[in-house]
Amino acid sequence: MKCIKCRGQAIIELRRHNAAFCASDFLDFFRNQVREAIRKYRMLTPHEPVMVAVSGGKDSLALWDVLIDQGYDTTGLYLDLGIFEYSVESRARCEKFASARGVPLVISRVADEVGAPVPVIKQVTRRPPCSGCGLSKRYLINRVALEHGIPVVATGHNLDDEAATLFGSVMHWQTDALPRQSPALPSTHPRLVRRVKPLYRLSEHETAAFAFLRKIDYIVEECPFAKGATSISHKEMLNRMEEASPGAKHNFLFGFLEKGRPAFERTERVALNECARCGQVTSGTVCAFCKLADQVKRAV
Amino acid sequence: MKCIKCRGQAIIELRRHNAAFCASDFLDFFRNQVREAIRKYRMLTPHEPVMVAVSGGKDSLALWDVLIDQGYDTTGLYLDLGIFEYSVESRARCEKFASARGVPLVISRVADEVGAPVPVIKQVTRRPPCSGCGLSKRYLINRVALEHGIPVVATGHNLDDEAATLFGSVMHWQTDALPRQSPALPSTHPRLVRRVKPLYRLSEHETAAFAFLRKIDYIVEECPFAKGATSISHKEMLNRMEEASPGAKHNFLFGFLEKGRPAFERTERVALNECARCGQVTSGTVCAFCKLADQVKRAV
Repeated sequence: MKCIKCRGQAIIELRRHNAAFCASDFLDFFRNQVREAIRKYRMLTPHEPVMVAVSGGKDSLALWDVLIDQGYDTTGLYLDLGIFEYSVESRARCEKFASARGVPLVISRVADEVGAPVPVIKQVTRRPPCSGCGLSKRYLINRVALEHGIPVVATGHNLDDEAATLFGSVMHWQTDALPRQSPALPSTHPRLVRRVKPLYRLSEHETAAFAFLRKIDYIVEECPFAKGATSISHKEMLNRMEEASPGAKHNFLFGFLEKGRPAFERTERVALNECARCGQVTSGTVCAFCKLADQVKRAV
Repeated sequence: MKCIKCRGQAIIELRRHNAAFCASDFLDFFRNQVREAIRKYRMLTPHEPVMVAVSGGKDSLALWDVLIDQGYDTTGLYLDLGIFEYSVESRARCEKFASARGVPLVISRVADEVGAPVPVIKQVTRRPPCSGCGLSKRYLINRVALEHGIPVVATGHNLDDEAATLFGSVMHWQTDALPRQSPALPSTHPRLVRRVKPLYRLSEHETAAFAFLRKIDYIVEECPFAKGATSISHKEMLNRMEEASPGAKHNFLFGFLEKGRPAFERTERVALNECARCGQVTSGTVCAFCKLADQVKRAV
């Protein structure tokens, strides 16, 4: 197998692109895909600071690596979810990455903000752990970026993540969620930062290869609560389709962005208020995060 | 396991309805679902003749059985595709069914109309057999109904069929096909009959049980050309989801009909002409069926 660029020995084959690359040309390909994502959706501008939400995993650290490399003014944000050894390990990977590159890393502890770590939130709310965790992450990412005066947050969601989320939304025809599924969400309120996903064109396999080649020390383990998550079974389903027909995932996501999503874009916007408690954006009076924090603080 | 109606011994469990039925209450349930489909989409009116497209399989014969039972003025239509023993056997099942119930059956041979049977069409066109076969079926079903002055054709498509077709359309975001996916398609031209699918609320498992309980002699084998068809792999995918979460298929299809489909309905209609050759409806000058027949007749 030869690299389609330099005809040297290829180290990775990308069936959906009908391509193979040597290490150096694969790194170029990867960075070009990120550049193309940023360009196509006008995700970032060169002199604007960007916050990179990092989990310690391959995707978000690969993203941070590329953005630093391309000269963006980045600040990492690590949310400590307090999930036992998993959180200890993943935090260490982020700190190591940031200090090796001399870039700032902000750390925010869910336990400080909500009143308890994710495993306790799970018990108090008696809901699946991903529910309170996801809510807290979305809220804190936005608030911390605002507090640092950073207008945009980049996350490491890749093609597989986005296709799996879309698959779930489509299987249930969640017409509220569908118009919000996009590689770039604009700010619709002064207290909402923009959110962008510069890796949406790259598969999980590709981010893993990039992280490996760039010698990024990332946490390989999945979150211990992720086992049995429907997103994982959706990924398996999509992987099976990809196996039978390379490009199936790509076509599903990109076809949606081109042809499906426009059909679901709503003209009317949901009215946004500021939470009576914390001042962050909510569609009600008190935001879901403050309600969660109340519930947790009452219980612990 | 007890029948939820009469508390007698149940013979079938319907997990997605969280129900179980004895034979007699299952037959009632099945017929009520057909009645509900017809009512909801105003598929049929009592004194109007309806043509039932029958293949000799469980679905279409079960449908014909219910419609006769409910007093509709039915005429069967069997299209002889000329697919070896499969067609001989399936035709015999339809003839037996019709003569036992004293209802009319029209038979139309694809070989007479196109110039060759499906296996030869496949060779001549060098396309997948389902392509020329599907085209011929759609065309002939409409034309034969018109010739008999019957304004509506009912087909045996069940929940599994409809969910699998939808799945394929969604995986590729075929925004032309999505608005046309409906249990009832109105006539949009004087030369197009209405098309209805009164079994869309019933699963393949349910139509098989109905046909079994009603002692309908149907052909069990699949079409020999169906092997490897993507619709089958889509069905497997959906079955896996149904297994993990009963009702998944139902929610996918019904959610689409309620919330997804309206988003894709187009205001503009495609201009419809009459084929210069046969007078049937086409968006071009000569219809796809006449082109196919020309190609086949030139070759054989």
